[in-house]
Amino acid sequence: MLEFDADNCSFPETNQKNVSEDGYELWMRYRALEPPYCAACNRLLRSLVFPGCSGSKTLAAARDELLRGICGMLGVTPLLSTAVTGEGTLCVGTSNTMPLISALGLPLDHLGKEGYFIGTVDVNGFHTTLIAANEDTGLLYGVFGLLRALQTGLFNSDFCVESVPKVMFRLLNHWDNLDGWVERGYAGRSIFNWWELPEYVDPRMIDYARANASVGINGVVVNNVNASSEALTDGFLVKVAALADQFRPFGLRVYLSAKFSAPIEIGELTTADPLAVEVRDWWKKLANRIYLLIPDFGGFLVKANSEGQPGPKDYNRTHVEGANMCADALEPWGGVVIWRSFVYSNDVARDRVTQAYTELTPFDGQFRSNVVLQVKNGPLDFQPREPINPLFGAMPNTNVGIEFQITKEYLGFQTHLVYLASFWHEVLKTDTDRWGRGSTVARVVDGSLFRSCRSMAAGVANIGSSRNWCGSTFDQANWFAFGRLAWNPDLDPEAIAREWVSMTLTRQPEAVELISDIMLRSHEIAVNYMAPLGLAHQMGTGHHHGPGPWIDNSGRTDWNPTYYNCADHIGIGFDRTAQGSGAVLQYSQKLSQTYSDLNTVPSNLLLWFHHLPWGFMLASGRTLWQELVIRYTDGVDGVERMIGKWATISDVVDASRFYQVSAYLQIQLKDASLWRDACVSYFQSLNELTLPSETPPPQHGLEYYKRLKYPHAPGNPH
Amino acid sequence: MLEFDADNCSFPETNQKNVSEDGYELWMRYRALEPPYCAACNRLLRSLVFPGCSGSKTLAAARDELLRGICGMLGVTPLLSTAVTGEGTLCVGTSNTMPLISALGLPLDHLGKEGYFIGTVDVNGFHTTLIAANEDTGLLYGVFGLLRALQTGLFNSDFCVESVPKVMFRLLNHWDNLDGWVERGYAGRSIFNWWELPEYVDPRMIDYARANASVGINGVVVNNVNASSEALTDGFLVKVAALADQFRPFGLRVYLSAKFSAPIEIGELTTADPLAVEVRDWWKKLANRIYLLIPDFGGFLVKANSEGQPGPKDYNRTHVEGANMCADALEPWGGVVIWRSFVYSNDVARDRVTQAYTELTPFDGQFRSNVVLQVKNGPLDFQPREPINPLFGAMPNTNVGIEFQITKEYLGFQTHLVYLASFWHEVLKTDTDRWGRGSTVARVVDGSLFRSCRSMAAGVANIGSSRNWCGSTFDQANWFAFGRLAWNPDLDPEAIAREWVSMTLTRQPEAVELISDIMLRSHEIAVNYMAPLGLAHQMGTGHHHGPGPWIDNSGRTDWNPTYYNCADHIGIGFDRTAQGSGAVLQYSQKLSQTYSDLNTVPSNLLLWFHHLPWGFMLASGRTLWQELVIRYTDGVDGVERMIGKWATISDVVDASRFYQVSAYLQIQLKDASLWRDACVSYFQSLNELTLPSETPPPQHGLEYYKRLKYPHAPGNPH
Repeated sequence: MLEFDADNCSFPETNQKNVSEDGYELWMRYRALEPPYCAACNRLLRSLVFPGCSGSKTLAAARDELLRGICGMLGVTPLLSTAVTGEGTLCVGTSNTMPLISALGLPLDHLGKEGYFIGTVDVNGFHTTLIAANEDTGLLYGVFGLLRALQTGLFNSDFCVESVPKVMFRLLNHWDNLDGWVERGYAGRSIFNWWELPEYVDPRMIDYARANASVGINGVVVNNVNASSEALTDGFLVKVAALADQFRPFGLRVYLSAKFSAPIEIGELTTADPLAVEVRDWWKKLANRIYLLIPDFGGFLVKANSEGQPGPKDYNRTHVEGANMCADALEPWGGVVIWRSFVYSNDVARDRVTQAYTELTPFDGQFRSNVVLQVKNGPLDFQPREPINPLFGAMPNTNVGIEFQITKEYLGFQTHLVYLASFWHEVLKTDTDRWGRGSTVARVVDGSLFRSCRSMAAGVANIGSSRNWCGSTFDQANWFAFGRLAWNPDLDPEAIAREWVSMTLTRQPEAVELISDIMLRSHEIAVNYMAPLGLAHQMGTGHHHGPGPWIDNSGRTDWNPTYYNCADHIGIGFDRTAQGSGAVLQYSQKLSQTYSDLNTVPSNLLLWFHHLPWGFMLASGRTLWQELVIRYTDGVDGVERMIGKWATISDVVDASRFYQVSAYLQIQLKDASLWRDACVSYFQSLNELTLPSETPPPQHGLEYYKRLKYPHAPGNPH
Repeated sequence: MLEFDADNCSFPETNQKNVSEDGYELWMRYRALEPPYCAACNRLLRSLVFPGCSGSKTLAAARDELLRGICGMLGVTPLLSTAVTGEGTLCVGTSNTMPLISALGLPLDHLGKEGYFIGTVDVNGFHTTLIAANEDTGLLYGVFGLLRALQTGLFNSDFCVESVPKVMFRLLNHWDNLDGWVERGYAGRSIFNWWELPEYVDPRMIDYARANASVGINGVVVNNVNASSEALTDGFLVKVAALADQFRPFGLRVYLSAKFSAPIEIGELTTADPLAVEVRDWWKKLANRIYLLIPDFGGFLVKANSEGQPGPKDYNRTHVEGANMCADALEPWGGVVIWRSFVYSNDVARDRVTQAYTELTPFDGQFRSNVVLQVKNGPLDFQPREPINPLFGAMPNTNVGIEFQITKEYLGFQTHLVYLASFWHEVLKTDTDRWGRGSTVARVVDGSLFRSCRSMAAGVANIGSSRNWCGSTFDQANWFAFGRLAWNPDLDPEAIAREWVSMTLTRQPEAVELISDIMLRSHEIAVNYMAPLGLAHQMGTGHHHGPGPWIDNSGRTDWNPTYYNCADHIGIGFDRTAQGSGAVLQYSQKLSQTYSDLNTVPSNLLLWFHHLPWGFMLASGRTLWQELVIRYTDGVDGVERMIGKWATISDVVDASRFYQVSAYLQIQLKDASLWRDACVSYFQSLNELTLPSETPPPQHGLEYYKRLKYPHAPGNPH
């Protein structure tokens, strides 16, 4: 984005209807508002009082953003003033920068360090809009709040909003390797160019920080959880510090993924035993070096003893001993250790999904207060649909945060249109029922259930060097929605979708309605063509693209789709009831009952919890086999419906983005058909049943699908 | 680039001085011309007669480009007309599309299929500018020729130019893997997104084709010479065809790197023996399939029996037998086989640089007429400086093309400013002296020396997904210069530099002078700090970044810098005279004498051909050791001078590009000092001599430099 030039404000060329856009602006797309609304807003924003900008990079950034937005949307730059001298002034300040705030006697304490208030006040008899906060970062968030209100048509002369983030740490996890390759990345290479840092800092880093601040994301783990120790060397930390300097004004802290064996690999120690004095010393000295370079360094993210990563168990130590050792090193500086709960043993368990719970719950209450356990939304691994992770609510004396996957490793990469917020909402609103009614996942995540001292929501980033950041237009919505939900896990995914569409694509009401509708239905559609009725882990090995329900020869048993579908000529599904693996018993008694009982288990989790005969009769009046085939077919039909709807709005979206979405929907249709046909073929080869009459036969024989290969799929670890 | 809208022409916003630019436009940057010149051009280009555009995608593309350029530079769109009815008309046509051309009786036959004529003619008494050609592609090149004349201030009422490419195949070789990773790529990932093709074709593909056409590049090998067989599967060819459809209007043909073992890997044969009937059949059927999809497919590029790649020698067949087999498959369709001469045996030779000549010259005259031997500029491997490859001129009965490396594998990657055209010019103007005086490399490459039926110049692309295409502004100049030199190997590198600066950065005369001067001195500066006096292959193993003159433990002897510097306490240099490896005898007698004689060998090739004692007295009056240290030091000083010069022009280049170049120059200075200090330290550790008094000591001890590592260097094969 080119720098903003307040002296030269006019509607930019790209305000022209249907001029092609490359998506680089994301939702910070400040196009001319429609005339009557534009005029009304103009009257309210004639002049701007924004003191303190020369002394604060955060305030300077907030003011620039405000001017950029107002200039773009209203076509004029407000008069910069030092006092309210007429109608239509916008005042932006903290009690430090603006005596007016104290004079007004507004209660602001409850806004904390990051919250903000926007409202109308009377100043010297003039109708004045005020953005107030306790800290500079709160004002920055407030500015973005005001701009969002303008973009979505909500701003008016009575506009009033108060917003305080419910979650303390709102983080992106970049699975970016130091050589620029992104694991499970579908949007090009890493946006972090370590080779050129610290000398050259890509201006894109500023736009990245703006985008995060605009949705309230306040931290970023810049390297892959499958970490390289080099990220902790002095030569690399200097580079991280250069990034941190750019991010700091935007309230964005850097974190690093730390490899547990770093003391050996780069520290020349012979052990990484967390109880060894020299190891503990090494981490402490490392923390000291880091904080000298990066005073607001966030902390370490650690993936330990999981999928081949080193960890404390290599030394017969526990996860607690490992995490607390790191925590002790960071504690003097205020840093946190984020310890991933995604651990599963090298020995294949009876049921892999039970392992993290079994392994970690005994440690509840033993983690240091600056440790946050980062728990994936479900117990398996970011599958298209999973029930909630049973760890939520099960560790009341531990800081438990949630990890969502924004990048669509298991949901069609960048070319499938899948809006994730509806699924995330489904997870967040689920009642763990462990601590009375309403002990939802959201209340675990925001810390309110157990009054956790540190709450956290992390999203695995879908961001890369693609010009449009996320590889596709609609994947931008998932970044946006993650930030909004991390700020407030109670937000409605439909409202978020409408916001994003209005800010990113069009404000035309019918089109907003139609596009939001496409988005909100999209996740269920994808689940249907990939893994309906609670199936999971049915994708090809390694690349995780395309169907492979027949695969039974992966490196370990619990990497096989057959391990998860348990399909044979008699039936299908993983029995996780008390009679099966017992995984269901890891939930609260009430939830366990709901999932165990065939009358109450949600149909979209049926085969997650139950193994059933193909002829099992469902409430729909169809057999399991019929229902399964119909769901797969519905998924494909759903993509066709999306294509039909999208085609109707060619006149409201610019040509480039319209074309890309259209082309990607064709890819999605091809892939959806493939998923449906391959899975139906395979299961039919087992049960030898006929298809429901209204569903078409697979296009090819099973052998065709088995032979398909996807070499060079993006995001696949080398 | 957004599409051009002729109805809405005005000077674009970015005409504003010093608005930041991201470099995406390359040299097709049509900014407003300075007022008096602008008005003069306007008078000559009031209206446009350009028939035939509705029937030809090439002509439509040419007309769009012309309007985009004129609108940008002159601020008005010429009146579209069907006949010359007044002063100041531009007519663009072939004898097919414009009866006027035939009526004028201009001799155009010698322009061939790609050449063009631009000149002034009298039409109905009106002063008229004419672009004429025999074919549509010639007109497209003519349009770019006219735009270049406008951009560089050469267009006027007497403007007259005739231009015919001297080289038939002007190709980019992309070392791009199918997963998007680019070998020796320093500009992000591949611009070819195979995962999304054929459904989605990135609009960037059009801009890529435009850029190539603008400098006359007419073919592109889209995949790495270290090839994957999947590139030849049906599923992949459909994707290539979709690209070819986009490239075709721009005169740009696609080629594929072919892996010699493909018949086994994807053809289910048990052999790839080029004399086996089933193998020959397999390649023929492959060619048939390709040409059905891509009627103008260019052909195959093959790296065989080199650095581990499979080839005919795996079956005890010769390079000729391998190449001719492929050639026979392509011959019916008019395709060519480009066979790389970069072959070196798995057995380490006495002198690796002699191998290709020894192996290939006996086959002169045996290659099919649709085989082109692609010969690297030097006998080793794209080192900072090498003498010419002795194969040039040595195979009079073979089509011999040249391969340059545009990507700077051995010249500091994207962050060092090194303009390569001066070195390429040095190679092209070198007289092989095999067929009388003036039998230069340029005359081998353009085919004029031996009347080759197929001439070729290939450049290993430096293009990637970076917004500025090449990773840095100045690397764009190398793409540009390669195209210009491939069109006409006799062009002057200084003229090319001035063209590029004027088109890309600024037209301000003093700045053009200064920037061109920086560019023209840059290669010698880099050679000095990396490998002065004819040293070569002194870089670190694998990543090829940074100094490693002490390295003696690579996988094979001839990958070791010590193999090439032969330095010990007595002397330094590789003896390639008749008394040494005899490599010098592979040149013509005259050239061999020049290089063998210490009085005539150019100082910049001294240690390439001679092993000399440290105390050897040079014509400069310095000992070899003194001279070596002074050259290294000069290299570093040269970078400092570049920094000083660049700093003076901050007001004529936009802020973003100015900053990036400034930051990269700081990286270059750091690296240059490192190269100098490390090499001087190492050689001093051998000879134990003191440094010349005017040169500073290395900053650190030798052990420091030996310990340096460059993990995660870009472009390094996994």
